[in-house]
Order: sequence, then structure tokens, then C-alpha cells
Amino acid sequence: MKTLIQNGTVVSATGRVQADVLIDGEIIVAVLAPGSALLGNDLAASVDRVIDATGKYVIPGGVDAHTHMQLPFGGTAASDTFETGTRAAAWGGTTTIVDFAVQSYGQRVFDGLAAWHEKAAGNCAIDYGFHQIIGDLNEDSLQAMDGLLDEGVSSFKLFMAYPGVFYSDDAQILRAMQKSAETGLMTMMHAENGPAIDVLVTQLLAQGKTDPYYHGVARAWQLEEEATHRAIMLANLTGAPLYVVHVSAKQAVEQIAAARDLGQNVFGETCPQYLYLSLEENLGAPGFEGAKWVCSTPLRSRAEGHQDHLWQSLRTNDIQMVSTDHCPFCMKGQKELGRGDFSKIPNGIGSVEHRLDLLYQGVVNGRITLERWVEITSTTPARMFGLYGRKGVIQPGADGDIVIYDPNGHTSIGLPVNGNGKTHHMNMDYSAWEGYEIDGHVDTVLSRGKIVIDDNAYLGVKGDGRFVKRGLSQYLI
Amino acid sequence: MKTLIQNGTVVSATGRVQADVLIDGEIIVAVLAPGSALLGNDLAASVDRVIDATGKYVIPGGVDAHTHMQLPFGGTAASDTFETGTRAAAWGGTTTIVDFAVQSYGQRVFDGLAAWHEKAAGNCAIDYGFHQIIGDLNEDSLQAMDGLLDEGVSSFKLFMAYPGVFYSDDAQILRAMQKSAETGLMTMMHAENGPAIDVLVTQLLAQGKTDPYYHGVARAWQLEEEATHRAIMLANLTGAPLYVVHVSAKQAVEQIAAARDLGQNVFGETCPQYLYLSLEENLGAPGFEGAKWVCSTPLRSRAEGHQDHLWQSLRTNDIQMVSTDHCPFCMKGQKELGRGDFSKIPNGIGSVEHRLDLLYQGVVNGRITLERWVEITSTTPARMFGLYGRKGVIQPGADGDIVIYDPNGHTSIGLPVNGNGKTHHMNMDYSAWEGYEIDGHVDTVLSRGKIVIDDNAYLGVKGDGRFVKRGLSQYLI
Amino acid sequence: MKTLIQNGTVVSATGRVQADVLIDGEIIVAVLAPGSALLGNDLAASVDRVIDATGKYVIPGGVDAHTHMQLPFGGTAASDTFETGTRAAAWGGTTTIVDFAVQSYGQRVFDGLAAWHEKAAGNCAIDYGFHQIIGDLNEDSLQAMDGLLDEGVSSFKLFMAYPGVFYSDDAQILRAMQKSAETGLMTMMHAENGPAIDVLVTQLLAQGKTDPYYHGVARAWQLEEEATHRAIMLANLTGAPLYVVHVSAKQAVEQIAAARDLGQNVFGETCPQYLYLSLEENLGAPGFEGAKWVCSTPLRSRAEGHQDHLWQSLRTNDIQMVSTDHCPFCMKGQKELGRGDFSKIPNGIGSVEHRLDLLYQGVVNGRITLERWVEITSTTPARMFGLYGRKGVIQPGADGDIVIYDPNGHTSIGLPVNGNGKTHHMNMDYSAWEGYEIDGHVDTVLSRGKIVIDDNAYLGVKGDGRFVKRGLSQYLI
Amino acid sequence: MKTLIQNGTVVSATGRVQADVLIDGEIIVAVLAPGSALLGNDLAASVDRVIDATGKYVIPGGVDAHTHMQLPFGGTAASDTFETGTRAAAWGGTTTIVDFAVQSYGQRVFDGLAAWHEKAAGNCAIDYGFHQIIGDLNEDSLQAMDGLLDEGVSSFKLFMAYPGVFYSDDAQILRAMQKSAETGLMTMMHAENGPAIDVLVTQLLAQGKTDPYYHGVARAWQLEEEATHRAIMLANLTGAPLYVVHVSAKQAVEQIAAARDLGQNVFGETCPQYLYLSLEENLGAPGFEGAKWVCSTPLRSRAEGHQDHLWQSLRTNDIQMVSTDHCPFCMKGQKELGRGDFSKIPNGIGSVEHRLDLLYQGVVNGRITLERWVEITSTTPARMFGLYGRKGVIQPGADGDIVIYDPNGHTSIGLPVNGNGKTHHMNMDYSAWEGYEIDGHVDTVLSRGKIVIDDNAYLGVKGDGRFVKRGLSQYLI
Repeated sequence: MKTLIQNGTVVSATGRVQADVLIDGEIIVAVLAPGSALLGNDLAASVDRVIDATGKYVIPGGVDAHTHMQLPFGGTAASDTFETGTRAAAWGGTTTIVDFAVQSYGQRVFDGLAAWHEKAAGNCAIDYGFHQIIGDLNEDSLQAMDGLLDEGVSSFKLFMAYPGVFYSDDAQILRAMQKSAETGLMTMMHAENGPAIDVLVTQLLAQGKTDPYYHGVARAWQLEEEATHRAIMLANLTGAPLYVVHVSAKQAVEQIAAARDLGQNVFGETCPQYLYLSLEENLGAPGFEGAKWVCSTPLRSRAEGHQDHLWQSLRTNDIQMVSTDHCPFCMKGQKELGRGDFSKIPNGIGSVEHRLDLLYQGVVNGRITLERWVEITSTTPARMFGLYGRKGVIQPGADGDIVIYDPNGHTSIGLPVNGNGKTHHMNMDYSAWEGYEIDGHVDTVLSRGKIVIDDNAYLGVKGDGRFVKRGLSQYLI
Repeated sequence: MKTLIQNGTVVSATGRVQADVLIDGEIIVAVLAPGSALLGNDLAASVDRVIDATGKYVIPGGVDAHTHMQLPFGGTAASDTFETGTRAAAWGGTTTIVDFAVQSYGQRVFDGLAAWHEKAAGNCAIDYGFHQIIGDLNEDSLQAMDGLLDEGVSSFKLFMAYPGVFYSDDAQILRAMQKSAETGLMTMMHAENGPAIDVLVTQLLAQGKTDPYYHGVARAWQLEEEATHRAIMLANLTGAPLYVVHVSAKQAVEQIAAARDLGQNVFGETCPQYLYLSLEENLGAPGFEGAKWVCSTPLRSRAEGHQDHLWQSLRTNDIQMVSTDHCPFCMKGQKELGRGDFSKIPNGIGSVEHRLDLLYQGVVNGRITLERWVEITSTTPARMFGLYGRKGVIQPGADGDIVIYDPNGHTSIGLPVNGNGKTHHMNMDYSAWEGYEIDGHVDTVLSRGKIVIDDNAYLGVKGDGRFVKRGLSQYLI
Repeated sequence: MKTLIQNGTVVSATGRVQADVLIDGEIIVAVLAPGSALLGNDLAASVDRVIDATGKYVIPGGVDAHTHMQLPFGGTAASDTFETGTRAAAWGGTTTIVDFAVQSYGQRVFDGLAAWHEKAAGNCAIDYGFHQIIGDLNEDSLQAMDGLLDEGVSSFKLFMAYPGVFYSDDAQILRAMQKSAETGLMTMMHAENGPAIDVLVTQLLAQGKTDPYYHGVARAWQLEEEATHRAIMLANLTGAPLYVVHVSAKQAVEQIAAARDLGQNVFGETCPQYLYLSLEENLGAPGFEGAKWVCSTPLRSRAEGHQDHLWQSLRTNDIQMVSTDHCPFCMKGQKELGRGDFSKIPNGIGSVEHRLDLLYQGVVNGRITLERWVEITSTTPARMFGLYGRKGVIQPGADGDIVIYDPNGHTSIGLPVNGNGKTHHMNMDYSAWEGYEIDGHVDTVLSRGKIVIDDNAYLGVKGDGRFVKRGLSQYLI
Repeated sequence: MKTLIQNGTVVSATGRVQADVLIDGEIIVAVLAPGSALLGNDLAASVDRVIDATGKYVIPGGVDAHTHMQLPFGGTAASDTFETGTRAAAWGGTTTIVDFAVQSYGQRVFDGLAAWHEKAAGNCAIDYGFHQIIGDLNEDSLQAMDGLLDEGVSSFKLFMAYPGVFYSDDAQILRAMQKSAETGLMTMMHAENGPAIDVLVTQLLAQGKTDPYYHGVARAWQLEEEATHRAIMLANLTGAPLYVVHVSAKQAVEQIAAARDLGQNVFGETCPQYLYLSLEENLGAPGFEGAKWVCSTPLRSRAEGHQDHLWQSLRTNDIQMVSTDHCPFCMKGQKELGRGDFSKIPNGIGSVEHRLDLLYQGVVNGRITLERWVEITSTTPARMFGLYGRKGVIQPGADGDIVIYDPNGHTSIGLPVNGNGKTHHMNMDYSAWEGYEIDGHVDTVLSRGKIVIDDNAYLGVKGDGRFVKRGLSQYLI
């Protein structure tokens, strides 16, 4: 199957150009000056399929480097399976996810990884890779880490939060970071001071402060800033590359920026929810409504200016990329578990479908350039996590993962369920983004050369997506 | 003339890929998967010329955004004409320069620009653009600035140094920056406190401190840091985008980084001399030898760590790009003017030929990545100064400005003159870089599809190069 | 005349103690445990006068290190003469002022100083010293500066604002600072970028923005921050001690704090108006009312948080002391000159009488401690400007300059004129502080052992005050 | 007993003055103009004893706020008892210590405090107070903390180091800081990341790196900086006042300075060893010699500039005071325990006798002023820890704790043992300061009016010293 995408504007991390893209089977084989003639040959006539992208952006498929499909959490599990979640991702123009395989406490690392392979294999709509959560950092785990790269897993994640679940103490972190420095595996960090948070949670509940809002109070910015700084210093000591996930506090951004100004290899990711939503408006919604937006790190105060600072940091590259931390739970039966006790609300928001749209709105709103949009949603994630070349770029040899985005289209994000107007495709009974209007639209999505989304229809099948082995990050110098 | 560059590694700002590049006439028309067959057509057979780049890097031609060909200075003039200077640039893999047209005091802006067009037209080996020096910022000049963009000149430069010559005071700078904010023209700044420097110069000479070394003493880092900060604050006040030229002091870098961390559109350029050479070793060379390295800003103390900090800043993007500030003078008859009075030594170093090599050595030495090399020498300069799309990238529609760089080659930089072993091609009677050994080699250089350098021979002719109109910077959001 | 102040709480910069103070003639001769018996002698019986300070604070008389009595400015002159101004100071518990002798452009330094001696001699209610304004920094002035210390003038002031009047350019500043470093004379700096301000003034007026509010717009915080940084860097280069007067922008405070954290001898003064008043509420008052608060640096925006930051900086010693910059003008005939053109409003506010009260309110409001109140209004000014030992402290050998302050008293600051309820004593036809209520009261003021204020009456006579020669600052290490 | 100290220069934190000091019994009753006549009475004739201080400094007795007399540590105990240690302190001009009562793990707080009272009572040469170490932060301890102030203990100390011994985790620290904010008790923090250090210790020993030098390697500056920042952030969150003990890393100083610039109540103490000694020269001494200087935090690298930065920070008040962390161990039988395993070397250095001398040398060397010497060794410690008024100042009502210091004297610090030339008086078999020469001498020491040191003889008796109850810090606003 040969496909020619004609007359579009190909946008890369560095610029845009009028060009055609030729895909042969699963692979991009050429980027060409527009017009179907190359050295006298009529390409359009030679291919099986021509897609007209006139007036539209042709961009590399999105890479969402932070998802948690069917993650067990707090006595329930994230409501998107690999099947539903990756399909929703495809709807939104994301053609690769990097999900987190979990080593639970007491489990061996490779057993955890194998379990994740089992969950995902044959179920995904798009390609997927894994980071490895190390939930029990011991001698055995450290040895296992030596083998991760061979498995195509070039990064692992530790938690400074959630004592008793995923938590690693500083001694464990130090040892893992030594391994990171030695192997080149990227250290990913959930940077919140869990032991301190747990004290505040207990105290707030004891004071009868049980509403979702207090989730945000307990997880104060100081405790994110602190953990971020601590992770940076341990990385400084060991020489480990460090990637801080879901940064939401501006003070944490400042710590990352300061470390980078001193030459340290520290990176930060934020998520759409931290750019748009807030403690006051969302977590603080009346009654139990705020539960929809319970995630960790929490939404931050708009009065304190975190959202504006994050947008700015995206522009100046103090924050390098945007993932979703997709971890959806339904209100019914899941979020509800925390009625009367915010600490029992499963932590997570579903956004895997909306990342490209929400960030594109940042382009429309003058927050970032079109090129930066591509960079933070696709190119940098691919470079950061060893996927570049196959993913994150439109060039010969790359996978045919391409999104045709219409800047004159429109997308309304709304509720998931009703007879004939389903407006999102994640397995959730609500939307964290209800009412958001996007001045653009994902028209067509190709995954390895196959059209999986077109004309508001899903054309793929379960199992289209394959596991991708990742190499080391490009940013290790 | 159709050219196919086969089997090389195409390196961009974001990554590298095995790909072939097809050039039709002056323009790149396709980037293709390696192997000459596309949809069954044997491309190699269809083109006029095939270049084998096996084992070599195929990179966009260098863009040197800071040169001063035949600039009148201190009673003499820079020794490279547009002819000799651009030819030397081509030898070194630079296929575009942006030179500085000068409006002198008392002159009208467009008269200055016209004079520069006259000097360059028909003489250049490679393409060239102009920035506009505003040496007399008055009502007339401000009006003229409204017309610069139409002339393809999207940036202007002011001097906080050289009172009585190019100097603008803060009132003038403020007004020019207001114009910059209004039009989008980039404000370029020579950031040194000239009035303070002149006091120190006078005092040093009065104390009999006349050696070249004292050039560096008089131009203390405090006076670069100060002016950099001042320019940043005036830009902050007006909203002007600011580009600080030839940053050499680490404290100036810190000012730029701090402004960027606060979201301000401030950019910094450094030059090879500030990365490699030093106050102690070069300016402080015995006798009058140091005159070879008299340039402004001056070389900085290695003991103070400026060089290492600059390399680090290049890596972390606190400094965005590298130009040469090419402004050569011969020792004989030129530098010699300052024997016994360092203030009479013409300010300038010739490096236009060596920028790509010297920075590539930074790759070899582990200072920066291969991608960053391309970014800081070609892609960012093109994006920064409105050339991207035509220059700075290998993609369809771009000019066929391409360098084939051999990582297994070797380049010895040495003296300019002798019968059979001329080792550089700038019109200078010495080299500021004598003895530098580079673990790589510029094998072939194409300028708009024409091979101008190959097999250590210059194959172009005078006048190959054309003036390129530039648009606004890509970084104005 | 022997005076014993009994049973009060003596407050110093470091603490408070119940103690009696014995003054013999003009000089304090003992600080004693309370109770009139010392070694069996009944002191109360031996003295001429006993003052009961039960329940009150006994503090060293205020030192206001920044006043401009009868200063010619903008075609008029500050409305307080040395007679009226120092009398008002006494009313408010200030027993020493350091006024600014002016060398005007074209004048010799010592002629300027002599003129100020002439104005002050025989007219003052309290002691006074002089700083020297250098308004024409040339060879002759530099030589004169060598003689200043012998005259008891240990500090000089330069202006980065007011081109054509007091303005010094960077070359002049550099040379003066070299002299400062050499002699130990403190460099005092009015840090605002005058040339830039003048551009904005011209533009605003041309746009018809003539109200007092635009005085604050033209003198943007960026231009204070910039000049502050510039002064710091020139001081860094030369080794001069630097004292920045009337700091109002939080960003300027941050520059000073940063320099101090790096070990540089930089100090900052703020004034009551910058702690309490604001751009929005005062300069922006309806009609021409805002003229009352036109001073330079200007009042700053409360929305931007400058006032809170200044209070905090006083607490943490990032700002070291509080002076008034007392420079009063009447509305009638003076401020009115700027009706329709804010740039013609004489710059200045009258506060010399209220400094101690206004800062004491900061103690009541929990902004600073009682000890810090004494430190920033008396002890540090005395130490900073070479008066300590005679002024700024209650200890044997010190001048009997003492204020008895009643924390249970009350002071209402109001309008100056009416038949029987004159509420301030400065020669102004309005008050910049009308309506301010102070939870304390200056009960008694002694100047060199003589009671000059008591029971709401002025008991001194013109000419009580004498010139005090000052030594070098205590902070020069 | 009435004592008159005549003709000396009384030095306070803010200045110096020629004055006499009259002590009646234990208490200072007057500070007087020099000369024995007051109101006609010949004071010298009326007193029991006159001390001539001509040419000498009369300063408040030193307050050493950090000592560990007879502290059990690492299987042995600090070699100075309260008797020997306080006597040595007296020799060196320190007239008050604040020692650390220890609540051990499993013990109740007040039992720990009682045990310390028992050790000290009747044994001390000078006055003493207690901080409370909380080694087991649980509900019971938190309740006990409410009662500490009534016991005259206004500060408690936590350890982020020494897991399994004194260590508190972040949850415990948070709760203790909440108590600190609520009660005003000062939180004192040993800020080193113990869990991380322990990993490095284990690894170094496993690599055969057993010499004392590796003590310094294991306790890297990053781990001090990190813990300092963490403590600051937890204090920020809770509102607790924070005092960081024995700061040695310049990066930790920078954290403290940054917090203070933001208005937070954070304070830092350093010790003489961090100002003078170094990793390279002392810990790195040949063989096992380095054990003499094993203390925590460790001595830092001179090449990295920590010592210079600490001196500078003392000058600019980024560090507020100097204590000794006196915790001596003999080489024989104690330090020797760590031969072949640096982790078994008891941590501690003995300096209680030398603090005033060593800091005075900083005055001679131009590092600090004479006034700052008094401030950092006496006045600030007294203000910081609620002793001011009785201690830390020479004024009526204060305890007669006075040192007469001869700037023309000389002190050679040498070995402790030999028949007739004992050169220090601490119970140690070596000196950490051997060879240090001081250009000054402690001539006479009075403790509550009694001469305890004079003419190089100890004149006191065991039990002279009394427990002093302390109030809240003066710095709590």
C-alpha cells in the first residue's frame, strides 16, 4: 500500500514547509516538493492512495509519554484498557503511547514488565512502549535494571510519594540513580513529598475537611517543590539524567530551570490539566464535583499564577514536553469511593484523546508557536525517550505515523455518553474537559501507514498497535 | 542540473537519518529513503550527478549571522572583501552570511544599506543577507526602520560601546527598541558599557599599560554584564525582542538565562573565539603577539571559567547560536597600528572559514551533540533571522545549500601563506587558530545546488552568491 | 544641667532594658539600673531635672540621612528652610538630619558646600550634617573629593537621572567610584535611568497624558531596577561602597539583595512613602490631586506588591534603613506649576516630621520589631554615615539626643493649617499623610541634653542645632 | 562585691565606646563615661575592686549555643564533662553555653531533659542552658514540647541524619515544625540527608575506602544542600522558625540566603572549623591523622571555596552566628575506634575554648569588624535563643558576664599535654587547632560578676555556673 499525502503544510519542530509525503507500506519513504511529478514521474498516479491535505497541517503523530492504562490504583483500576485507551488516543492524533509497566512491592521487575506486555499485546490501536515503575527497589531490582534496555525499556520511574505503595526512600533513590548514571536509563520521578503529604491528609480528614478541594491543600506546592529539588540534588550527586513527571507548581519549574542553567541534565513534563485547570475552579467545584479533577500532583491555584508560568515555561523550554498522565476513573463506582474522604478518590484524569487539541489551542491563543506544538507533543517526547527516527518526525525511514490537522476545523469537547453524539472516546462516564472548544480538528490519522481515523470515524482494528523497543534518550550528553 | 546525494547520514537539529537528498537545479526537491529506487524509478539513473556520501554527514550549509566584510574600522578596513571572505566561508562549509550594513553617523540609513549592496553585489561566493547597523539613531533613522523589512532586512544593530563612532545612548536605544517591538525587527546589541571602558582605556594607557593584554583588562566582564542587563531591561520595558551579539562573559550569559527564565524574548550568540581562546593564553601572549586576538567583547579569563560556562550554555540553550563576528585584520599594516597603544589595534578576529570545524570539534570533545552542532551553526541562525525554509534545513523547497562532512577526515588549521600548503583562505597574514587540529573535514559544499567546494578545491566563481531577503524571526511569540 | 530619665524602657538596635539615663550637659554620661541609687548615692536628688519615662520607650533620637531643605528644584525651591524643616523634624523625634549640599553644574564643589553651610548655620533646631551632591564631575571635582572627609563630609551623591541638571554619565560615575574606593567616601546613588525616562516623558506628554499619574508611568520600575544594577556593577568593578537612595521597586531591592549575597558592599534606603503609598491610590488620585505625591523614584503599584516587599526587606535587612527624602513643596504656587504637564511638578514629598511615627506603626502592625524600628531610624543611619557614638545610640559619651516615645499615646496626622489645631509643622500647605493614625506618640525630645519638644510644645530656639562632622561609614570592611 | 572595669573600650554589636562598667554583685548596674567621678562621687573609691582595662576591649561574655558535653555517641561519649568543658569555655571567654539535652529513642522527653540537668547541675564553671534534642518524635513527644518553654527550653533539635539513632523522617519533621510554629519554639536542624549518606558510606567501605578522608566524601555537599532546602520548605509550609546548625557547604548558605531574601525566618550557624579547616588539608591528612577532624557536617573542600564563602556570609549576615558544636573525643580509645572504618570514628571536634580567639583572628585578618565579632559570638546567640538582656550585652540589668580582651596580647594554640606548658584546657589528648596563632588574648573573664579567669589562671570553682531558663527567640516576627 503506497500513500501520498499531497499539498499539505508539513510542520516540524523547527519550521513548516509545503511538501508531499510518500509512505510505502508502514514507512515514510520520501518528503517531496509539492506536485506529483518527481523527475518526470507522476507519483500520484503510481500510488494506491492520495490524501489531499490542502490547507491543513501534516504533522508527526503525537507521542504521549505518560499513560496508565488499566492501572490498579486505590482498590480499583484506571477505566481505560489498552484497547479503549489507545483507541481514544488515536481519535486525538496520538499514535504512540509510553505506558508504565509496574513492579509492585514484593514483585520482581521482569514479572511486572511481563504482566504489562500481556495486558497490552494484541489490544492496542496504536504503537506503545513501556517505562518501568520500580515499586520495590532492592538488590534484585537493581540487577534487573541492567537488563531493561535490552527489553526496549530505557527509562524507569520512582515515586517520592505514596508511602506503602510505590514509595522509594532517598537511599533507594540514590542507588537507582547510580544505576541510571551507569546505564543511561532515564530516571523519571514523581516528585512530591509523600510522608509529609500523608500527615496533612490525616490532619485535614480529622478536621472534617473531606471534600476534593482538600486534596489540593494537602499536596501543597511546597511539597512538590521540595521533592523536585531533592531529586535534582540526588541526580547532581550521582550524575543521573532526571525527568520530572507532571510538574504543576511554578516553584518546581523554577527548580528545574535553575538546575538546567547550571548545566544539569534535568527535564520536566507538564500536562494539559496543569495548563488549563485550577484548584479554585475545578478541585473547588461545589459538592463532590471536584472529584473529577483529583489527580497528583494536584491542580494548582490560578491566583498564584502557576498556569501562566507553565505556559511560559513551555515556550522558553524550561519545561520540555507535554504528556497527559492519562489515568481515567469513572465517577460512578470509582471516584465515588472518596465521597466523604478525599484521600480515597482514585487519583487521575483522562486526557489522552485531547492533548493535541488542547495544546493546539495554545497556538491559537498565542501561547506557543505551531512548531513548538509539534515539538512538545511529538518530537521531544520521541527524542527524550529513544523513539526518534521512527517516531516524532516526518522523514524517510520513519514510521508512517501522521496526523492531518485542520486549522479551520473545530472540535467541541463534551460529555461521553448520549445516543448519537458521543463526544469523546475514553472509557469514562464524564469529561474533565467538558465545554472546551478547540479551533482545529484532527481530520486524519495514520498509524504506520494505515488510516485509523478519518472523517470522524475509527477505521482501525484492535491489535493494530505494536510494542516499540526504545533506545536511550538523545539528551544524555 | 539534477543532483542526488546518496547514502549519507542527514543530520538535522533534531536527529539523524540515513537518507538521500535530491536537488533539482538550485532547490532541494526530495529527501528520500536511501537506495535510488523510488516507486520503481531508478533515481540515480535519472539525475545528472550522484554524490556518494557514504559514511559522511549531510548537513544544511552553515549560516554565519555575524560578519563584517571590508568594514572600515579604526582608520583601516577589515581585510576580507566580500569576495575573499565569502570564498573562505565556502571553504569552511558556510553557505550564507548575514553581514552588517552600516549607517554611519550623519548618514541616512538607506544610503548606508545601498553602499553595502554595492560592495557585495556580484562579488560573493555564497548567498548573503544584511543586518542594518544604526549608527545615528534620529527621527530620520526611525522612519527608515519602517522600511527595512521590505528591503529584506529584518534586524538592526545598536552599540552600547564605541562612543563617538557607533554608540547609541539609552534614550536612543529605548526609541529604537520601541520600533523593534512595533515592527518585529530584531534588536541586536553590542552590549558593553563604552563610556566606562573608555575611562579605563585612558587610565591604563596613562599608566604605561599599552600591551594587547590590557585591551582585555579595560573591557572588564562587569561592563559586558552591565550592558547586557541594561539592554534586557530596556527590552523588557518596550517589549522588543533582543539578540545579544558576541557574548563572552559567563555573567552576561547568566543575565540572558535569567531573562529567558522569566519569559522574555532574549537571545544570545557566542563565537568560537570565546569558546576556545582566553585572556591569559592569547591576549596575554608575549610582546605584541596578543594583538592577533584583539576583538570586542574581549577574550575572557580561563581561570574564571568563562569558556566552560559558554560551552555549557550552548548545550542547555541558554546561548542559542554561534556566529563568528568575522572581522579580520592583518598584522602587517593593520594590527600593527596599535603597537604601543592597544586601543589603536583594530578590533577583530577572522574565523568565518573555521566555524563549522571548530564547533564540530565540540561534538568530538563531548561538549554538544551532533544535532546541536547543526542547530547552532545553521538551523537556529536561519530561524532567528528569517531565513528558515530556504536556509538552515534540508527539506523540499529549501535551497540546495548542503555540506558533506567527513567525520573520519582531518583538518589542520595553520598559517595562511606559503607556496604549496595554504591552510586557510581568508585574506589575513596570520591565523588566530594556528595549530588547531579538527577531527573532521568539510568534503563537499553545495550552494544552491552548485558544487563550490570539493576535493579541497574551490569550484565556484565570483558572483555565485546572491542577496537573500529575510523575513521576521521565528521566535517572536 | 544634669538630667535623669527614669524608669523608662531603653530600646536599642539589639534589645530593650529597664534603665535610667543620666545626661550631664549635652552628653550622656551613664546608663544605669533603674532606681535612683547608685552605690548609695541618690542620683535623682543630685540632678537638676528628672524625667519620668515610666511605661514609655527611651530611644536614641532619629537620624534622617536624606533631606533637602530649601533645595532649588524645577524653578522653585523646597518649601522648608533649614529653620522650619529641622523644627518639624524635632517635633517628630528626629534629632539629626544629613542634608545634601549641592555642587551645581559649573560650580566648584567647595563653593557648593560653603553655600549650604551658609543656609544652615544658625538656623537649625537640631544637629545637621551634609552629604555632597556632585553635580559636575570633572577633574576639579575629583580633586575636591579628596578634601571632603576633612570637612566632615564622608559621602557624596550622584544622579543617574535628571540629564542636564544633576546627571552623571557612566564615565563620570566610574571615576567618582574609583575615588570612593580610594578614600572610603560612601557613593550614594539616585538610581533611575534618566535619559530613558526623558524619552517616555516626552512621548506621554505628546499623547496628552499630562496627569500626575503619568509621572509614575514614565519612571517605570524597569528603569529603577536597571540603574540600580548598573550602579552595583560599576561599584563591583571599582570596589566602591554603594548606597542606593530611595529604593521603591521590589526588583531594585532584589538587585541589592543579590549583590549583598555575593558579598558586595551595597546598601539600600527606602522612605515611608514607598512603604505606605501607591501609584494607584495616590499618584492616581482624581484630577491634579496626585501632584501631592509626585516624587522620584515614584510611588509604585500596590497590585505589583512593591510595598509589601519593601516591608519584608526592612525586616530581613535587604534594605538597611529608612530616610525621608524630605523635599516638600506647597500645592499653591509650587506643585501647581505642573498642572497640565506632570513633568513640571516639583518632585518631592514632606515627611521629615513623621518618619518615626510612621515606622512605629510598622511595629504595631507586626511588620518589624521594636528593636528594628530603632535600628532603621537611628542606629544604622548613624553607623552608615559615620555618626555612630555621638548619634544613634544611648550610651556614655553619646550626645544627649533622646526621644521618649509613648506606646500608649496617639498621633493623628492631618492638615497643616487651621486656627487652633495645627497638626503638622512642616512648611507645606497640605499633608502627604493626611488621615494617617499612629498608635504612639513622641512625648519628649532632647537634643544634646536640651528638651526641645515636650508636652506638645516646641521649647527650642533657632540655632540650637550644630553642624556635625562625620567620619567614614562603619560598613566599609 | 562591687567591681568597676575602667578605661576599656566597650564593644557592642553596633559600635565601640570608651566607657566604664560597674557591676554590683552578679549584675551590671551601670555603664558610665570613663573616669571614676559620677556626679561628684568617686566610684573607684566606692567599689571593692577596680579592673584596669586600658587599651583593651570589654565585651559581653561569649555565648556558645551549640555544645555536647559528655554526649554518648557511637559507643563512647564526648570526652569533656560539664565540668571540664565549661571550665575550658571559661578559659576562652565563653560565659554561657547552650548544651543539648537528649531524648533518646524510646525515652520520654522530660526524662531526657532531667538526665541532662543531673549531669550538669553543680558541675559547671559558667552558666548553661539546654536545647532539647527530640530523638523520638511521637505523640507523647509532641505533647511534651508544649511544656518545654516553661522549663526554660525554647528550642528543640531534629536530625535529618543518623537513621536509627536521632533521625526524624519528613512526616515527623512536619509535625514538629507545626508545633514550633504554634509555640514559637525554635526548630533547630541537623541538615544532612542521612539515608543517602549511609548508602555512600556502605559503598565506600565496600570499596576499601576506609580512611577518614572518605567521611568527607560520603557526606557530600549535595546532601547538606538538599536537606537544608528540605528543612526550609517544610518550615515554609508550616510557618516554623528554622535554625540550621553547623552549616559548612556554600550551597547550603545560598539556600538560607535565598529563603531569607524571600522573607522567611531561617537562620544559619557555622563553626570555626568550617571557616578555617578543610577536607584536603585536615580530613585528608596522612594516615589516620584525619580522624582528628571527623565531624558532621564534614570539613569542606578549600578548592571549592566553601571557607571563603562562609566568611563572606558571616559579614553579610547570610549566616548569623558562630557556635562550636563542641563534641570532643580523644584519639586514644575514642577516635581510634574508627581505624580501618571511618564510619566508626566518633563525630566531633573540640573548640569550645577557642571560638572567641579564632573569630577575633577574623577581625585581624579583615574578614569581619570588631562589632560583628561581638555580634556573632555573643549578642546574636543571646537574641536568637532567648537569653538577651541577661546575656549577650553589656548594659544595666545584665549578668556580669564580661571578657577583657587584649588586642596586643597573643595566644598560641597548641597541644594539651605536658608538664608546664599546657596550652588548652579541654579534656582531649590532641588539639584540632594545633599551631594556630592568635593576635589577641583573653585576659580576664567575669561570670556573673566573679572573676573566673585572670592572668592565665582559673579562679573559679566547680558549680559556679547555673542553669539559665531561656525565653523565645527575638527573631520570631
